[in-house]
Amino acid sequence: MIRITFLPDEKNIEVNKGTSILEALEKAGISIDTPCGGKGICGKCKILVTKGINPITPIEKKFLSEEEIRKGFRLACQTKVFEDSIIKVPLKIRLDFNKLFTSKSKGDIHHIKKSFSLKSNLRKVFLDLEKPSLDDQSSDWQRIKDKLSLMKIENISNLKVAVEILKKIPDVIRRADFRVTVTLQNNEIIDVECGNTTESSYGIAFDIGTTTVVGYLVDLRTGEELSTVAKANPQVIHGDDIISRIEFVQKQKDGLEKLQREIVNTLNEIIRETTQKAGIDKNNIYETVIVGNTCMHHLFLGLDPSTIAPSPYIPVIEESLNLKAKDIPEFVLNPTANIYILPNISAFIGADIVAGVLSTSMWRGEKIVLFVDLGTNGEVVLVSKKKLWACSTAAGPAFEGARISSGMRAAEGAIDKVKMDNKSFAYRVIKDGKVRGICGSGLIDLIAELLKLGLINKSGKLIDREECKSELSEEIRKRIIRDKEGNKFLLVKEKETENGKPIYLTQRDIRELQLAKAAIFAGIKILLKEVGISPEDIQEILLAGAFGNFINKESARRIELIPHLPLGRIKFVGNAAGTGAEIALFSIKMREVSQEISKKVKYIELSSRPDFQEEFIKAMSF
Amino acid sequence: MIRITFLPDEKNIEVNKGTSILEALEKAGISIDTPCGGKGICGKCKILVTKGINPITPIEKKFLSEEEIRKGFRLACQTKVFEDSIIKVPLKIRLDFNKLFTSKSKGDIHHIKKSFSLKSNLRKVFLDLEKPSLDDQSSDWQRIKDKLSLMKIENISNLKVAVEILKKIPDVIRRADFRVTVTLQNNEIIDVECGNTTESSYGIAFDIGTTTVVGYLVDLRTGEELSTVAKANPQVIHGDDIISRIEFVQKQKDGLEKLQREIVNTLNEIIRETTQKAGIDKNNIYETVIVGNTCMHHLFLGLDPSTIAPSPYIPVIEESLNLKAKDIPEFVLNPTANIYILPNISAFIGADIVAGVLSTSMWRGEKIVLFVDLGTNGEVVLVSKKKLWACSTAAGPAFEGARISSGMRAAEGAIDKVKMDNKSFAYRVIKDGKVRGICGSGLIDLIAELLKLGLINKSGKLIDREECKSELSEEIRKRIIRDKEGNKFLLVKEKETENGKPIYLTQRDIRELQLAKAAIFAGIKILLKEVGISPEDIQEILLAGAFGNFINKESARRIELIPHLPLGRIKFVGNAAGTGAEIALFSIKMREVSQEISKKVKYIELSSRPDFQEEFIKAMSF
Repeated sequence: MIRITFLPDEKNIEVNKGTSILEALEKAGISIDTPCGGKGICGKCKILVTKGINPITPIEKKFLSEEEIRKGFRLACQTKVFEDSIIKVPLKIRLDFNKLFTSKSKGDIHHIKKSFSLKSNLRKVFLDLEKPSLDDQSSDWQRIKDKLSLMKIENISNLKVAVEILKKIPDVIRRADFRVTVTLQNNEIIDVECGNTTESSYGIAFDIGTTTVVGYLVDLRTGEELSTVAKANPQVIHGDDIISRIEFVQKQKDGLEKLQREIVNTLNEIIRETTQKAGIDKNNIYETVIVGNTCMHHLFLGLDPSTIAPSPYIPVIEESLNLKAKDIPEFVLNPTANIYILPNISAFIGADIVAGVLSTSMWRGEKIVLFVDLGTNGEVVLVSKKKLWACSTAAGPAFEGARISSGMRAAEGAIDKVKMDNKSFAYRVIKDGKVRGICGSGLIDLIAELLKLGLINKSGKLIDREECKSELSEEIRKRIIRDKEGNKFLLVKEKETENGKPIYLTQRDIRELQLAKAAIFAGIKILLKEVGISPEDIQEILLAGAFGNFINKESARRIELIPHLPLGRIKFVGNAAGTGAEIALFSIKMREVSQEISKKVKYIELSSRPDFQEEFIKAMSF
Repeated sequence: MIRITFLPDEKNIEVNKGTSILEALEKAGISIDTPCGGKGICGKCKILVTKGINPITPIEKKFLSEEEIRKGFRLACQTKVFEDSIIKVPLKIRLDFNKLFTSKSKGDIHHIKKSFSLKSNLRKVFLDLEKPSLDDQSSDWQRIKDKLSLMKIENISNLKVAVEILKKIPDVIRRADFRVTVTLQNNEIIDVECGNTTESSYGIAFDIGTTTVVGYLVDLRTGEELSTVAKANPQVIHGDDIISRIEFVQKQKDGLEKLQREIVNTLNEIIRETTQKAGIDKNNIYETVIVGNTCMHHLFLGLDPSTIAPSPYIPVIEESLNLKAKDIPEFVLNPTANIYILPNISAFIGADIVAGVLSTSMWRGEKIVLFVDLGTNGEVVLVSKKKLWACSTAAGPAFEGARISSGMRAAEGAIDKVKMDNKSFAYRVIKDGKVRGICGSGLIDLIAELLKLGLINKSGKLIDREECKSELSEEIRKRIIRDKEGNKFLLVKEKETENGKPIYLTQRDIRELQLAKAAIFAGIKILLKEVGISPEDIQEILLAGAFGNFINKESARRIELIPHLPLGRIKFVGNAAGTGAEIALFSIKMREVSQEISKKVKYIELSSRPDFQEEFIKAMSF
């Protein structure tokens, strides 16, 4: 074993000789941005290391400047450690998800919560038990039951209890001198504690995304959100998208168990951090709600997702599930804590979308509403006359910065907004400083502005410098540069970039964006056709997803990611999945609604629609 | 590690140096008779060993004859092994429980079974599923549900499934080309198998005794008993009675877990052997019923029995429980197999007694019936006018051969019957051959005969040779021998015994028997008093327990173990607990009856009855 120290965290871990730095980072619980999943394709995982590693590889030479190499930069995915090392992990490449994903509009959630009855299925009851004697030889369990009935607690006939709780009872009640608090869930006693703990009743909702996992800790008595933590899904090390996770399950021995363990460990970390922040005991968490896409849902449960990916795309189960924490190996919650898992709709419309729809009022069906979740898969839900339709489009990861030459996530150093006119070009950089790349919202802005100025034509071609309209300034014209792969547009000069290389938008980048937006737009068109309405009939477009919150509506409309509707009809709903999960946490009624939603949705399989290809090709142009 | 070979089994095991032979035997799964629990008090665990052990101890010298020592006999509990050894374990000291405990009157059980409706809560259904396609993208689970509703299977709304089964489904249905059998228990799918397995549906009932564990494998479709296996409870190594088990839990680190593991391992062994005998797959066992005394019940469940032993004698739970096999660590059954545990009545009237009562028709309450279970605890149940009363008496282990100078279990070499008249003394030895001791039924016969001939007076004193009636022959008289501890009665001369020493009945042995029978008789008296009837009102006495089957009714009546009633009113019901467990296995109705019985019984705590001591003293005399 050798020892690695990660800076600036000063985190020490021990690993076997020859472990890759990427694996070591995972083991140390440090999440970094690895869009290619550690395959040496993206060159984003630059870390600083001085000794004890393999010589630099050709792949690294491709991605590192000479100065970087001189300074000791390496790619975490390409380096293996052979002796004790000190490794510096630049903060810039870290995934600081908390900033991005925990920013829900509190007002909104409280508003939503208020409109639903706050009622969980939990009750805590303090019992001052009679002590046993030769005249009163009831068992400990009977003593608790008798007291509950004496107190006229409702709905406790046929009271159940798990062996784990029975095991605790004799010790707890004697330590507490027969003054204990029992936690009832429906007609089951799921916990017994010393003394009066009736004030401590918490729940946690999780949104398990392919990239990010967020946990929301809630006080079940008040509905108040106590703390929120977001973390990278550690499975990203095996690849960015669900297909790579499924491949991992199929190819690796115990791959399924490994992926389940990774996700459960992350939930455990989130439980630790949220409870610490809120200053509560994790054993007082009695309810958990889980949402996620169908693949994440399956991986959390340890269900093989292999049949999700190939046609005809079959999940193991869609319907909602109630489990106990003990059903999930290594889960740190109280073994008898309940886990409610929202229903899926199909292989590619998961419980996260159900939760998203639940968090809005669209399921009431009073308006014609289009719900679009922007991510690697663009999920689209349409409601009209109380009926629901949904489809999933393979938008690809372009919006998340992958497959774009200078693409990156919305993190420090990313261009997230672009503004152009005939004379000037301006951009905003997250946290200012040197530019590292462009994120999804910046890319949408950029393409929209280039379209507006006629620099990109309807077919998506970046025109030649000579074809530019006369009103365009030289400053703008000069940014169009021709090289052997076609035209490219200069975004940032080398002086202003972090790695000292200029940043361009290439013709290929535009094509990637076209593929992504065409997929979503074609999906929307198919749903409209299925329902028999036209885009103008849509009264509201709801844009969901962490990324959705940050894009410019006008730009999104210009590039035809969404139909051309008055901007007033377009709304952001943020992390709708997380909000929906939280709502389900404290409202049993809303769990029922989520089940109704999942049953009412008509899922449209785009791959079996002969008209999809046609719509897709149409939607490619601007 | 050193290697021990046990003969004649030729069983090899490896143990640490210094392991006691008793522990090694346990590890090897060879059960021997250790009435004192390995404390060096009884001297019964004689084995033959030649080398590699500690020198002979003073305790061993006390119990081994010179010839035995010369031959290499040692006590298993006093010897530690320090090098590879070959150890011969005489068949005579082995507990061959199968002979004793599996001998139920088949006719009887079938008669009982017939009178109850044969209905378990299990259904197996063969499903020929449609294969998925792009036009039919239901999940695997939904596919199964839809087929069941198409087949109009009743009572499957709100169908449930455990994660373990969901995990199996995708693989099983595809391997079976979508032709599978599901096992339904109530409204839960508890198994999915390839192909049509609807004919294979089994259950197993266990009677967990302090000394013996018996398993009965049953075909749930027909109620037929397929095979039965009895084994020693391996916990006997920690002592014979429940008090010693509770002490073990309290004094040993992880003592509770250890005792639970021991009992579960034994059930696992029984499952292996019964299924092997019957030629069935253990995964087709879907139902398990467990009965046992309250302490064994708690130990099986991993519940701390510590509060059972001291006053006021409080169990953790009395009521019946339904569990899954996965709730019991290391249990080898299908994780979703159901375990039904019959209710207890109190700390000293366990589920075994409930099962025993269930197996008779006394719970119907049409007659006044007295049920007596003879064992270390003598449990007594009385029914009159549809009401039930019960008490438990600390009879002690005298009937099982413990605390009797030449006492032993009913195994090879034990005197099990005695016949005397004025002139002759005759006995029967189990499997003939040399005599090793006397078992419970022999002891009762012997005392009864000595009473009849006036050799024991009403107070229990063995009279002097000179006091004998004149009609007694010299042959009989000469058997009364006086030594420093009082009179003793010669049973077997040295020539006919295995160890070459004569076997006697001592005055102290008589006192032990008096204590045991007085406890039971006083318990019976208290119950009669409670109900307000006299012994003559009893219409039927049912004697239960493995030992009960073999005693002579007339002798039992003469020594006043039971009230003096016409012999026709006294019946043996054998291993009533096992029979009751089997009945509960295939009849849901009878499970309900068992719950009713447990609730209806009025438990009488003898220790809080001031009149018990008085009755006990009265009952000491004959």
